[in-house]
Amino acid sequence: MNNFKPYYAVIFTSTQTETTTGYTEMAHKMETLAKKQNGFISMDSAKNQIGITVSYWKSLEDIKTWKANAEHLLAQQKGREQWYNWYNVKICKVEREYQFNLD
Amino acid sequence: MNNFKPYYAVIFTSTQTETTTGYTEMAHKMETLAKKQNGFISMDSAKNQIGITVSYWKSLEDIKTWKANAEHLLAQQKGREQWYNWYNVKICKVEREYQFNLD
Repeated sequence: MNNFKPYYAVIFTSTQTETTTGYTEMAHKMETLAKKQNGFISMDSAKNQIGITVSYWKSLEDIKTWKANAEHLLAQQKGREQWYNWYNVKICKVEREYQFNLD
Repeated sequence: MNNFKPYYAVIFTSTQTETTTGYTEMAHKMETLAKKQNGFISMDSAKNQIGITVSYWKSLEDIKTWKANAEHLLAQQKGREQWYNWYNVKICKVEREYQFNLD
């Protein structure tokens, strides 16, 4: 863990309702907006039966600020009203990391 | 964070090569084997352009033991030789969590 600087991950796991109207547009809008926030590092998403989105942030404060962003709050509300059956959010501290690249 | 007991997440992010022979069988085998390990809590996976698998564990020691499991080591080696272009593993401490369920 030499010189490893901890950062934070938000693991958002979800299952969706059958109502998909407006979802893709909103997901794209929120991704664009998240990338403009202070402390945003990166984001990965994949979806089959379950959707997993992991976003990475420099600090807990940055995550808190993004959660309270006015446009994001509206998206969260619409998500609960229309798009999600269930979701779970986990705030994590990334403590260690390693990588493989094919030569 | 009342009574919240921290646990650990392993975020495995990957992109695959065009060689898929044996991959699905091995993924299934490793999922079955992981679920039998000490300290295993749960696991979520989704894959599109990128694959994301997040497994949850009671302790760092449990994660270390699973990483060193003989059958798992063989799977990791085959993964690097055949199935993955790239992967990244992040070991994280889950510090906070909340959930939504549609009524």
